Amino acid sequence: MTDKKSSLSDVRERIDSIDQQIQQLISERAGWAQEVARVKGEGLSAIDYYRPEREAHVLRMVVDRNNGPLTDVEMVRLFREIMSSCLAQEDPLKVGFLGPEGTFSEQAVRKHFGHAAYGLPLGSIEEVFQEVAAGHADFGVVPVENSGQGMIQVTLDMFLTSKATICGEVELRVHQCLHSLNGKLEGIKRVYAHAQSLQQCKTWLRINLPGVECVAVSSNAEAARLARHADDVAAIAGETAGRVYGLKTVANGIEDRADNTTRFLVIGRSLFPASGNDRTSLLITVNDKPGALYHVLKPFAEHGISLNRIESRPAHSGKWQYAFFIDVSGHINDGPLQAAMKEMGDAAAQVRVLGSYPVALP
Amino acid sequence: MTDKKSSLSDVRERIDSIDQQIQQLISERAGWAQEVARVKGEGLSAIDYYRPEREAHVLRMVVDRNNGPLTDVEMVRLFREIMSSCLAQEDPLKVGFLGPEGTFSEQAVRKHFGHAAYGLPLGSIEEVFQEVAAGHADFGVVPVENSGQGMIQVTLDMFLTSKATICGEVELRVHQCLHSLNGKLEGIKRVYAHAQSLQQCKTWLRINLPGVECVAVSSNAEAARLARHADDVAAIAGETAGRVYGLKTVANGIEDRADNTTRFLVIGRSLFPASGNDRTSLLITVNDKPGALYHVLKPFAEHGISLNRIESRPAHSGKWQYAFFIDVSGHINDGPLQAAMKEMGDAAAQVRVLGSYPVALP
Repeated sequence: MTDKKSSLSDVRERIDSIDQQIQQLISERAGWAQEVARVKGEGLSAIDYYRPEREAHVLRMVVDRNNGPLTDVEMVRLFREIMSSCLAQEDPLKVGFLGPEGTFSEQAVRKHFGHAAYGLPLGSIEEVFQEVAAGHADFGVVPVENSGQGMIQVTLDMFLTSKATICGEVELRVHQCLHSLNGKLEGIKRVYAHAQSLQQCKTWLRINLPGVECVAVSSNAEAARLARHADDVAAIAGETAGRVYGLKTVANGIEDRADNTTRFLVIGRSLFPASGNDRTSLLITVNDKPGALYHVLKPFAEHGISLNRIESRPAHSGKWQYAFFIDVSGHINDGPLQAAMKEMGDAAAQVRVLGSYPVALP
Repeated sequence: MTDKKSSLSDVRERIDSIDQQIQQLISERAGWAQEVARVKGEGLSAIDYYRPEREAHVLRMVVDRNNGPLTDVEMVRLFREIMSSCLAQEDPLKVGFLGPEGTFSEQAVRKHFGHAAYGLPLGSIEEVFQEVAAGHADFGVVPVENSGQGMIQVTLDMFLTSKATICGEVELRVHQCLHSLNGKLEGIKRVYAHAQSLQQCKTWLRINLPGVECVAVSSNAEAARLARHADDVAAIAGETAGRVYGLKTVANGIEDRADNTTRFLVIGRSLFPASGNDRTSLLITVNDKPGALYHVLKPFAEHGISLNRIESRPAHSGKWQYAFFIDVSGHINDGPLQAAMKEMGDAAAQVRVLGSYPVALP
């Protein structure tokens, strides 16, 4: 016992000394952030200092350097918060999102901008675009794609009429698992989960647990809690929730779309320089002629540029025109992308660069 | 321009080198946290390593050392998050609170436990107590006092029947200001705010802006946004919101209670050692005899122990008994408090130590 105690107090002394050094360095970092502000000029706000490409670069270095024991996600999270605090020494960034607070959209805001940014809950996705356009919000965070349900049309359509640019992307991953007390599929008579999770896993449930009673409860955490009480009950919940409630995992990744991710776009009013690992979103309108899309896409293929996404929408501009939302790898200032854009030439009726932005971090 | 650019890149190089050192130190700290786990024994969860008195001690050192430029609040916040990540390397702490997510109660959870803890939104204050008692949550966070509305009776009454202990307190301060475009009181014809804020400031409004139209809107951020449009409109909102929306402050601290604070208690199942700056909560039942309370309080006065709060409730134990919730300065193991408790002797029908816990940090 004395040995344990003395070694514990040794460890605490070491932690105290580490904390002192960390604090010294964070303060120094905050001082340099003020110096950046000074270099850029007096009387500016956080929006004038905020450089998404620089933040992405810093965080990528954090991931590259990370050798544990903290996970990449945790280490990135801590550096986001440190940068968030340093930036918010001037007026904090104002970030609009689809409210109320506590939603997935707010989680995306916090993941991207940290907790020192000023979150502004708004009533609709349209309002997020409007507030950014009017300058009442510096940035907005809007959902654009759910791997289960596809592209979110209202967000895409806003780009047809608004001048918003895309300054970043955020991904929130939700992996669903089936958990139970004994970890066995046999004998399960009832499955608890939030209604949305039951929906997301319905194919898996139909195939693997046909005829089993599915009960919707207020949250997946609640489901995991209920599953502690009997062997014939299971819960759908994330990995952490299952572990936290002392359950065993019956099956992993049971959502119908294996990679259950919601993707958000950070919208703003300007375009930013390259971060070294970027994506470019284009809005291309073509006339309804045979081969129109083919001619638009050909130059990308020829210059070895990956197409990450393509989605068509009826354009507002003309009856027989279609708008394509195309995501490609690289920054708009990169050589190959510039060449491809040039070659595309007249194949497109209109081309708008929505933005070039750092690829989402973990 | 070249000068600006080169000095900017110099600063960024310095920041990169600082970040590298911070990351190295955080990783080292996380390693030592694992060492603490190893010293304490295998197969334990975060609840077995979590020491509120140690965290409070660490954070107090952070405040003592802080010389800016970051505020104490921001620096404490960053260290909370670092400790939260280090602790959550094993199973994260489960913390129950009055849901849904995004409420003041969740803010209190995050302020106290950081974002690596596992928050469990529950349906009622009673349920928070039940989940902690059943061991489904390691801790719970419940509101106990609002400086405007006084003690929250349902929380106090839960201590009469439950065995919950108090392991910490969290304070969330909300200062209300009146903001407008020109910063002048004269000429204001309409005041926007969230209904609750209008309520909290109604005396000030009646005295200083009699007859002015008060309009309830969805949030104070929304109010500040609306006030940007005309000189005869003002908004009640926090200091940050006013600054963020480019408004001038007409008046500061306009809430009827100057210190508009909500106080939360962290409840758990055990008592913790002293942190060096603690408060003790006692639940004392007295028989309805003349001077009963006087005899209970006398020893505290005689030993120079400050009474921070006292609140009486009808006891459940008997028809003519009253229960007093008394908060005093110090830890229950401190000499003066032990002596006072001894001298109190038979003056009280029953004495229960609800907990000794670190005084709330900024």
